[in-house]
Amino acid sequence: MKVALIGLGSVGRGVAEMLAKKDLGLTITGIADSKSAFMDPAGIDISRILANKKKNGSCGDQHLTAEDVIKKADYDALIEVTPTNALSGEPAIGYIRAALSRKKHVVTSNKGPIALAAKELRAMAKKKGVALRYEATVAGAIPVMHTLEHGLAGNEILALYGVLNGTCNFILTRMAAEGLTYEQALMEAREMGYAEADPTYDVQGIDAAIKLVILANTIWDNGVKLSDVDRTGIDLLTPDALRLADEEGCTIRLIAEANPKKHLLRVSPRILEKNHPLVNDGTLNALTFETDMAKEITLIGRGAGSIETASAIIGDLLYIRDHYVQRA
Amino acid sequence: MKVALIGLGSVGRGVAEMLAKKDLGLTITGIADSKSAFMDPAGIDISRILANKKKNGSCGDQHLTAEDVIKKADYDALIEVTPTNALSGEPAIGYIRAALSRKKHVVTSNKGPIALAAKELRAMAKKKGVALRYEATVAGAIPVMHTLEHGLAGNEILALYGVLNGTCNFILTRMAAEGLTYEQALMEAREMGYAEADPTYDVQGIDAAIKLVILANTIWDNGVKLSDVDRTGIDLLTPDALRLADEEGCTIRLIAEANPKKHLLRVSPRILEKNHPLVNDGTLNALTFETDMAKEITLIGRGAGSIETASAIIGDLLYIRDHYVQRA
Repeated sequence: MKVALIGLGSVGRGVAEMLAKKDLGLTITGIADSKSAFMDPAGIDISRILANKKKNGSCGDQHLTAEDVIKKADYDALIEVTPTNALSGEPAIGYIRAALSRKKHVVTSNKGPIALAAKELRAMAKKKGVALRYEATVAGAIPVMHTLEHGLAGNEILALYGVLNGTCNFILTRMAAEGLTYEQALMEAREMGYAEADPTYDVQGIDAAIKLVILANTIWDNGVKLSDVDRTGIDLLTPDALRLADEEGCTIRLIAEANPKKHLLRVSPRILEKNHPLVNDGTLNALTFETDMAKEITLIGRGAGSIETASAIIGDLLYIRDHYVQRA
Repeated sequence: MKVALIGLGSVGRGVAEMLAKKDLGLTITGIADSKSAFMDPAGIDISRILANKKKNGSCGDQHLTAEDVIKKADYDALIEVTPTNALSGEPAIGYIRAALSRKKHVVTSNKGPIALAAKELRAMAKKKGVALRYEATVAGAIPVMHTLEHGLAGNEILALYGVLNGTCNFILTRMAAEGLTYEQALMEAREMGYAEADPTYDVQGIDAAIKLVILANTIWDNGVKLSDVDRTGIDLLTPDALRLADEEGCTIRLIAEANPKKHLLRVSPRILEKNHPLVNDGTLNALTFETDMAKEITLIGRGAGSIETASAIIGDLLYIRDHYVQRA
């Protein structure tokens, strides 16, 4: 199967490295970063491209763009992993539309397009007879979407609750373990590379809320939006609050929860017993689905990381390879 | 899709009830218990059969057998959930062979056939161009096989460790929580219906070892057998051992682990920190896969139960429906 890779940030490099390393029957025929692009229908030598990128800061021909690759390259599936604003969804939405209109399968790690335009993009994919997959948008390496699609097939999903933001989980872990203030723990998170200079998007629960919207729409197709999420961040939590929880054998985690029958769609700090499956240390993500047959199923794993996110993207690509391209 | 259901114990009844309740496009055309059978190519009225079974102790015509259904009924997939000896694999192995030889897909919850004859049965299924699926054999409702097949596709599985026996987990939970002796906790497990009159199969780690063999062969195709598992049960554990662990913030769980590079294939009581993801209370199962890209992925859920096991079986049936039958 031929793939085009758009975006060579942390995630894109992870995907490129894994495709070069593993013999998965996936050939990159087009590649683009924000400044340049390169196409070769016979297959691109990834290690040369990555070395170029490291040396010159660009991956190919500076007269070519991502659009050129998406519109002209010879590929079966687009890997869309550009740096995209999660609140506007661009440039990813435009890229995904362009690929779908050419009847190309799309795999994306960008939350914006799915949170904002899932209905339109899914309808477009369906009309064109191609796949639009986005396992990497929620909970990193944890195969959330595959579990919903296959592992829990036939189940009614009644509710979900999870830890979907690793930055907040790290901060809360450090506040509880060392009695740090929010500011101290945030500084530590920055030093470890877990928090951005402007942490608003993480600590006010926006990132978790966007992932919750993606999950809710995937499961219940209920057209919820970010503004529908009842959202409280962790930035006002005090060491006292964590100490009081600790005295009761509990701790605090930022929990995203959805339960359509209770009209519940919320991201907020919650008190949980320390041995609760959603209480994990560091940047781990965790997610519980409450279902009618399987009852509660919990998944725990890494919510971020270059190679971890590549795992989710490659899972999607292999699904497309086995269930669409090789069957065609 | 037409299915034949062989076995009407706890699991079979759960499957029958869910197929009757849910509109999944699955029609039962043949059904059998140990004493009788019934066939109708137009579809069987499940509630009538289950009422009959309750009233008369048999589900249909006493002149018909499971073999008749397997060999003569009109169906696409066999649901093989007979009471089968996990150490001999019969009668399930014979039933599965008979269905595969007719080019029928097979879904089973029986560990014996997969632990003992996976290589032969998989080869036979492949030759006949049909599926042999067995999600329900390991960890009940937890979608372990789907996760390996799809969610972690492209990953190298380096090792696994898990709690695969709910009876042992219950006994250890009660010993730790109440300071009970092994015998006291076992008696409680019996009263709750979690332990058999003869608990050997569970408490000596045989059940967990069989599941470990199934997982190892599924992942690494390394032809390991039950006798290859280095096995220690929980029946010699004392309340003292659990108290000592507790003093260090730890507890004890019966852990099944496999790591081919370390030549490790073992079921034994292990000391784990209380907040370890594999430490869960009661009869819950849990399993961690260590992989090259996704790193550690942990799944937690119910390891047994009529409807929980039906969830795993229905997931397999829907996969066959969507990826084999509807495409044919």
